[in-house]
Amino acid sequence: MTSRDVKLHRGLQGVYFDRTETTFIDGKKGILEYRGYSVHDLAKKSTFEETAYLLLYGSLPTRGQLEEFDQQLKSSRTISGQTIDAIRLVQDSHPMDVLRSVVSSLAGFDPDYGDNSIDATLRKGVRLTSQLPTIVMAHDAMRNGREIVEPSPSLSHAANFLYMLNGNTPSDDAASLMDRDFILHADHGSNASSFTARVVAGTGADLHSAITAAVAALSGPFHGGAAENVMKMAEEIGDPENAAEYVKGLLSSKRRVMGFGHRVYRAEDPRAGHLRDGVRQLSHEMGDPRWYNILEAVIEAMKPYARRGIHVNVDFFAGVIYHLIGIPNDLFVPIFAVGRVPGWTIQVVEQFRHNILIRPLLLFSGEREREYVPIDAR
Amino acid sequence: MTSRDVKLHRGLQGVYFDRTETTFIDGKKGILEYRGYSVHDLAKKSTFEETAYLLLYGSLPTRGQLEEFDQQLKSSRTISGQTIDAIRLVQDSHPMDVLRSVVSSLAGFDPDYGDNSIDATLRKGVRLTSQLPTIVMAHDAMRNGREIVEPSPSLSHAANFLYMLNGNTPSDDAASLMDRDFILHADHGSNASSFTARVVAGTGADLHSAITAAVAALSGPFHGGAAENVMKMAEEIGDPENAAEYVKGLLSSKRRVMGFGHRVYRAEDPRAGHLRDGVRQLSHEMGDPRWYNILEAVIEAMKPYARRGIHVNVDFFAGVIYHLIGIPNDLFVPIFAVGRVPGWTIQVVEQFRHNILIRPLLLFSGEREREYVPIDAR
Repeated sequence: MTSRDVKLHRGLQGVYFDRTETTFIDGKKGILEYRGYSVHDLAKKSTFEETAYLLLYGSLPTRGQLEEFDQQLKSSRTISGQTIDAIRLVQDSHPMDVLRSVVSSLAGFDPDYGDNSIDATLRKGVRLTSQLPTIVMAHDAMRNGREIVEPSPSLSHAANFLYMLNGNTPSDDAASLMDRDFILHADHGSNASSFTARVVAGTGADLHSAITAAVAALSGPFHGGAAENVMKMAEEIGDPENAAEYVKGLLSSKRRVMGFGHRVYRAEDPRAGHLRDGVRQLSHEMGDPRWYNILEAVIEAMKPYARRGIHVNVDFFAGVIYHLIGIPNDLFVPIFAVGRVPGWTIQVVEQFRHNILIRPLLLFSGEREREYVPIDAR
Repeated sequence: MTSRDVKLHRGLQGVYFDRTETTFIDGKKGILEYRGYSVHDLAKKSTFEETAYLLLYGSLPTRGQLEEFDQQLKSSRTISGQTIDAIRLVQDSHPMDVLRSVVSSLAGFDPDYGDNSIDATLRKGVRLTSQLPTIVMAHDAMRNGREIVEPSPSLSHAANFLYMLNGNTPSDDAASLMDRDFILHADHGSNASSFTARVVAGTGADLHSAITAAVAALSGPFHGGAAENVMKMAEEIGDPENAAEYVKGLLSSKRRVMGFGHRVYRAEDPRAGHLRDGVRQLSHEMGDPRWYNILEAVIEAMKPYARRGIHVNVDFFAGVIYHLIGIPNDLFVPIFAVGRVPGWTIQVVEQFRHNILIRPLLLFSGEREREYVPIDAR
């Protein structure tokens, strides 16, 4: 094959590699649906538990189903002493590297280890959904020399996550905002981490392998790192008055403005508005409108580019919310992972249901047919 | 998008996603070249160390370059007490799960942790090339209650690998066959594990993330598991006389014959012949021709299918070689990983050099625009 004969799909942009029944995205119109339900309805009316159930099992739960599912989640929150040891071994690494190593270690401790059936995979996914928050927060306590906060057996998924940060039950507003954030991050088509999970599942490897690999992909700054970078940008700007100048400086040196643009969306990211409301409300409640005002000033400065399809994305507001809630910057990407476990799980299940090895091709552009020269003649 | 508007590339079969200067494959003609050199020349005339250098740096080394590279490999073989602890924590898991967890943990212990430059990535790749054999063999000793054999500071990569199995220096023939096996597994285009590594690198994640994910992908039975399955098949057949009946039974129930067929090759896998010679020779030396005869009988029984492009692949002979050398069946896939580290590394480097996020699309085929019904009305 020479380069003239083949079409090159760099980044696989625009290439459809399979079907899904989980998440619908219309990037031009800015539409996002999970299992056919608008993400706007889910963000306003649902909870993370209900949304996770919907993603995993395909329909909204009855009250009885939801209670049972919630009980499964709550009862799987505690992690074993072995898992604590696994965290301790790598406690000086970045939280995403810790999460990757510990999720990998959990494989062999799972009661369904070795069973790759759909049912076992869903059970593993529910357990990982429960366990990731505990891992992230146990590591954060450990590295800061604080006592590890045992997970609450009664709080909601989102409230328990914040509770484990410092042992204080969060305000209803903070818990509800965290819950909405998890809903908005629960799935998003074949983003790089979910696609990684599917490639791994395509070889017949198990859910822990797939989610370990997904965490690895999410740790890259071009995928999960944007929320952390938006917060850094807001800190560098420091005052709303500096925003226009800052944005101009970035763009004139051909650098990207963090939290703007998306491979899929040419309209505004449908998830962004919900978090925008959250930032405004939380800033107001805390009497600290600075970050909100800085973000709005950046949006104002970026308005000329919105016409070219460069819109604000979900990461733009997420980072400031986490910061206002009191979460350290390097936990922003792990939070994304915590919310995404149901999405990764159901995509692995979809892959298993109609499995095929995912194996594209590379076009060779180097030198060919070189003659092997013995070492002393080189 | 509806299914009528788009072309679906299931498994990304035939889709070119990027360029490479590393490995050329012509599946129809059965040609495989690393950096332009025929794999036949490399298998016969080169060593794993030289081939790894060639893959990583693009040209065959001079004697001085090879000595320096060899010294780097030898001096990185020892693993730390922390790494031993990381193995111990998951010692009851499958060796591939152990390898995935331990490679992940190594990230934060690497002296170049946090540096994603090309130079640092190559240095990390050299260290991982050295360390994987030590991890695999330390785990094997540990789970069997044997003393861990410290790596040799003087043996070649392949000989040291076999030495760590039981503390005995291997015969020249066994070491040379292992060396050839590592050469033949060193790279192979965008196979599922290398592709996984590139998807992870595409997000800007580091080499340890990419190789952890690659190990995850390789652990699946449709990718790395074939050599292990060929050995199982040979054991089930038991005697050359049973081979024809066994193959007929598999094919009549639409099951696959392990070690035959490949996504890319329509001719004989160019790697297979080298290992075929190895099996014959080793069987002869050991006065145990049974396995070789069983494999040849299977090939004979499969001859009618060769016309349809179903040929023997590299995994067909590899498993029996490992078995004859005395390697336990569940280490066959880890051996594949050990050989593949240079390939994974250089593909991550290629990805970093012209990076782009690898993010394809999924075609939605589920229900749309469903109305959110309150829980008590469901």
